[in-house]
Amino acid sequence: MKRVVILGSTGSIGRQALEVIRQLPDRFKVVGLAAGKHWQLLAGQIREFRPDAVVLEREQELNNLRDELVWSGIPDLAWGRSGLENLAMLPQADIVLVAVTGALGIYPTIAAISAGKDVALANKETLVAAGHLVIELAAQKKSALLPVDSEHSAIWQCLNGQERGAVEKIILTASGGPFRNFSKEQLDNVTVDMALSHPNWQMGNKITIDSATLMNKGLEIIEAKWLFGVSYEQIEVVIHPQSIIHSAVEFSDGSVIAQMGQPDMRLPIQYALTYPERLPGCCSRLKLTRLQGLTFEEPDIERFPSLKLAFEAGKTGGTLPAVLNAANEVAVNSFLKKRIPFQAIPFIVGEVMEKHLTTKQPGLEEIMEADSWARETGAALIRTL
Amino acid sequence: MKRVVILGSTGSIGRQALEVIRQLPDRFKVVGLAAGKHWQLLAGQIREFRPDAVVLEREQELNNLRDELVWSGIPDLAWGRSGLENLAMLPQADIVLVAVTGALGIYPTIAAISAGKDVALANKETLVAAGHLVIELAAQKKSALLPVDSEHSAIWQCLNGQERGAVEKIILTASGGPFRNFSKEQLDNVTVDMALSHPNWQMGNKITIDSATLMNKGLEIIEAKWLFGVSYEQIEVVIHPQSIIHSAVEFSDGSVIAQMGQPDMRLPIQYALTYPERLPGCCSRLKLTRLQGLTFEEPDIERFPSLKLAFEAGKTGGTLPAVLNAANEVAVNSFLKKRIPFQAIPFIVGEVMEKHLTTKQPGLEEIMEADSWARETGAALIRTL
Repeated sequence: MKRVVILGSTGSIGRQALEVIRQLPDRFKVVGLAAGKHWQLLAGQIREFRPDAVVLEREQELNNLRDELVWSGIPDLAWGRSGLENLAMLPQADIVLVAVTGALGIYPTIAAISAGKDVALANKETLVAAGHLVIELAAQKKSALLPVDSEHSAIWQCLNGQERGAVEKIILTASGGPFRNFSKEQLDNVTVDMALSHPNWQMGNKITIDSATLMNKGLEIIEAKWLFGVSYEQIEVVIHPQSIIHSAVEFSDGSVIAQMGQPDMRLPIQYALTYPERLPGCCSRLKLTRLQGLTFEEPDIERFPSLKLAFEAGKTGGTLPAVLNAANEVAVNSFLKKRIPFQAIPFIVGEVMEKHLTTKQPGLEEIMEADSWARETGAALIRTL
Repeated sequence: MKRVVILGSTGSIGRQALEVIRQLPDRFKVVGLAAGKHWQLLAGQIREFRPDAVVLEREQELNNLRDELVWSGIPDLAWGRSGLENLAMLPQADIVLVAVTGALGIYPTIAAISAGKDVALANKETLVAAGHLVIELAAQKKSALLPVDSEHSAIWQCLNGQERGAVEKIILTASGGPFRNFSKEQLDNVTVDMALSHPNWQMGNKITIDSATLMNKGLEIIEAKWLFGVSYEQIEVVIHPQSIIHSAVEFSDGSVIAQMGQPDMRLPIQYALTYPERLPGCCSRLKLTRLQGLTFEEPDIERFPSLKLAFEAGKTGGTLPAVLNAANEVAVNSFLKKRIPFQAIPFIVGEVMEKHLTTKQPGLEEIMEADSWARETGAALIRTL
């Protein structure tokens, strides 16, 4: 029986994690849940899973939740960043699923690792902005970092039992998003609704836009670098529109091991939670003979410059990946609010990166300062557009 | 430094194994070579690799070889089945590559295992006819059975570090051969030359015909059953015309791990020889974005009944798989000599199987008797056609 804390339980990953747990009731006990503002959805989760402790982002929603729960038993309640960090360190927890979005996910991740918990990591920003700190801390605390992204889960599965020194290349697949075949001119006229219709995956809004710009793959390059200890030269992005091969590893002898499956986030979530075991679960089965065929293309960094920006930020390192990520968050939010056009997203990220004076080997404080600076600089730039 | 014996060094697998070894001179020392009749080619191999001992099938060619070698140093020479068995037990050998074709490969395989050698197994007949004996003996002698077939090597690589109990299904891929899209009528008019033109793989004649009838895949089903300890219900054959995914494993959580590569036999040969290491070698690299696309189809057992016959033989077990194999060998030889049409191959195999009274749990002698009986019965049947 693994005792699980889920940070971000009302988001897409959090809800799917609870689906996985619902199918495996004798394997998991939910001991903690945290959400942002969706206290009503959280109330339902509390009634079903009976966690010991619950956290919301603000006091106001926490009060609403307390009133709502009065008839059905109240767990320990807390709010804000310190509440989240304490929940990540909950003594009775074995594993913490970090599925909150945004750079704030760094704090509870570091808290969980510091407390020696295993961390199933769905928050991209943690490794993008603070990879060097987090990987070092996890090694020191002997805390396992279990990837939840389908791509990183795939690579991790492909590396199982293989000789790490024989890894030649990591092949990160990307669906290419809904605009894979759009010309530059067509990309000028992309609307929010168009960008929110991903061909293969049902995901949150921010990550869906990131998939459309390929920034999602850019962030994953940086994550892969830290998770698997490879150089950026060893990471190749391949467009694979069907999202059946979730990623692959090429070895020194020319053999390629790939992980395949239906595009279903419950599979990597379940694997991270059940690892090192595999269990029958809720995931749909792949039937190769029902597929229309699998195709592969080179990514076009002219039309999708986010990928180039991410490689640049990763190779430079220091505070620059945090800046890339923060500027992108600001730009995506402005796009979702229809304040800037689609093509302005990578433009803003590139401009903010260019203005940044990178600090090498930054501590957490310097990273968060760079993050704030990038948000402000990005926002100021957006106002001038 | 691994000391290697190669049985069948002048055949397709044997020559490619020597290519692999040539690229990795500080890793391998060839201590023994055996061939059938090609003593001149063998003489060249002896001059290059300087083995301690050499075996040919018959005394006559051995004498020719002795005369030829007089100027360049002579290793220990022997001939025939006992020569082959002694070579397989050569004290200084670490690993024996069994790449002789036909049911006779069983004897040196058993000899090598009995002597505690690791065996890289390219001879299909050994596991098809005597799987239950060979697997038990290998477990008892703690001798590793390393698959050399590209499909079984793929499955073995996919299983590396994975939980065996979580294996749901083994997905054996098949190119479908040159007649994949032929109608029954077109199959009636297949010539030897047509059948010897395999679309993806360069192989010996017997296995190329077996690929065209799909009997090759049938034999591989039986091998997979023994090598990986699965039931026949857990083995699925999928036609994959491009031969890029060499096979795959589906796990209980729905995850599929696949091994991919260029169709190049040197890759599985090298992996069997270097295992558990992977080394840079002579194998060509897979470039996903240069592929035209990967497709998958269900096999058609109406047009390719060999697959059904193999499943039947495997499920019945006992002496029947040996009979399937021997009848097929006789029929393929007759086809290669243009004595019978292509479609008669599975017909003869099916007829001989039907006449056979299966012995359950046979010993080696009963297996070889069944093999001889099937050859005679098949030959007699061919004379009546």
